[in-house]
Amino acid sequence: MTTLYGYFRSSAAYRVRIALNLKGLAYEPALINLVKGEQRSDDYRARNPQGLVPLLETDDGIRLTQSLAICEYLEERYPTPALLPHTPEERARVRALAQLVASEIHPLNNLKVLKYLVHELKVGDEAKTAWYRHWITEGFDALEAMLTLEAGSGEFCHGDAPTLADLCLVPQVYNAERFECDLSAYPRIQRITANCRALPAFQQAAPEAQPDAP
Amino acid sequence: MTTLYGYFRSSAAYRVRIALNLKGLAYEPALINLVKGEQRSDDYRARNPQGLVPLLETDDGIRLTQSLAICEYLEERYPTPALLPHTPEERARVRALAQLVASEIHPLNNLKVLKYLVHELKVGDEAKTAWYRHWITEGFDALEAMLTLEAGSGEFCHGDAPTLADLCLVPQVYNAERFECDLSAYPRIQRITANCRALPAFQQAAPEAQPDAP
Repeated sequence: MTTLYGYFRSSAAYRVRIALNLKGLAYEPALINLVKGEQRSDDYRARNPQGLVPLLETDDGIRLTQSLAICEYLEERYPTPALLPHTPEERARVRALAQLVASEIHPLNNLKVLKYLVHELKVGDEAKTAWYRHWITEGFDALEAMLTLEAGSGEFCHGDAPTLADLCLVPQVYNAERFECDLSAYPRIQRITANCRALPAFQQAAPEAQPDAP
Repeated sequence: MTTLYGYFRSSAAYRVRIALNLKGLAYEPALINLVKGEQRSDDYRARNPQGLVPLLETDDGIRLTQSLAICEYLEERYPTPALLPHTPEERARVRALAQLVASEIHPLNNLKVLKYLVHELKVGDEAKTAWYRHWITEGFDALEAMLTLEAGSGEFCHGDAPTLADLCLVPQVYNAERFECDLSAYPRIQRITANCRALPAFQQAAPEAQPDAP
């Protein structure tokens, strides 16, 4: 059985859960408590030297890391339903939307970075929240503009079915809501998120539906 | 003619320059001075609402953003020489190495983040350098472990020819050297970087070889 090492609130694990669900692939969850630092244990690092979740271990013992690399692997091995459109140009658009979340917003706001701000840079609560919201705002401004201006947009980030872009967007919106970011300037993002959340694959991947959720 | 909007020191533009060179694709450089804030001009934002480089405009007027999405596009449209190996498992490994740089290290250390640290969080020079080195160390520790322990490694990150992973690694090493990070603990990273730098495609993509280099 495929095993997914993850944590209920990890955005990156959340993306992979959605991908697995959309493709109808069963998996065993292995829970790594990031707040307790279990990702840094020798045992876990022996599986993934990065000390990060997610890690996907396949039936045949192959270990895959980095959420977008895992999703691309799933797409290649289990092409239906597709998480990427057909033409290279459309695929590039979807990957750009996904990377905008995965490389411009999420890395700045994940747990290890917020901890560094507090513990090493002695940043107060207010400045930490301002930091968080700053990168959400900058990223979502760009994303909303792309979703509004570009031809490919539809009921989802690209067209009328979920793609790699949506499975990055929804976990990022979840995080933004947790930090009480004002999303009223992003009607497209909100509508697409609502469309995603109407699907069981997204519902079952949500943090609150995981076995390690409080 | 294909146009690449970039900046000599942008890691993300540097990646795309290497990919274009490896594939033997000619392009016109369009120079966007990030220090002067030209990426935020109305004119540039009309082309790329993200206000980021790189942006690749193809012959047929298609605009592509986000370096890894651009490289995947180039790989699909111009498959030879390949920047990704053949099997889904190997491709996943290369993409994971690339994402480790592109999502875990680079986003924390790019210009806009360093500016935020200095201007908004009033972080001093020493703490800024410590921040920079912290994320390099954490990321390179993981990368070195993967390159040492995993079967796929060779004279390059994966096997004996450059892949997507190498074109993320080399710009990151360039940045680490600029910030005088101690790389002595990373012999694999150093050897692979040296192998890359021996190739004209990497040499011609280097920041110092660009028309906007001082």
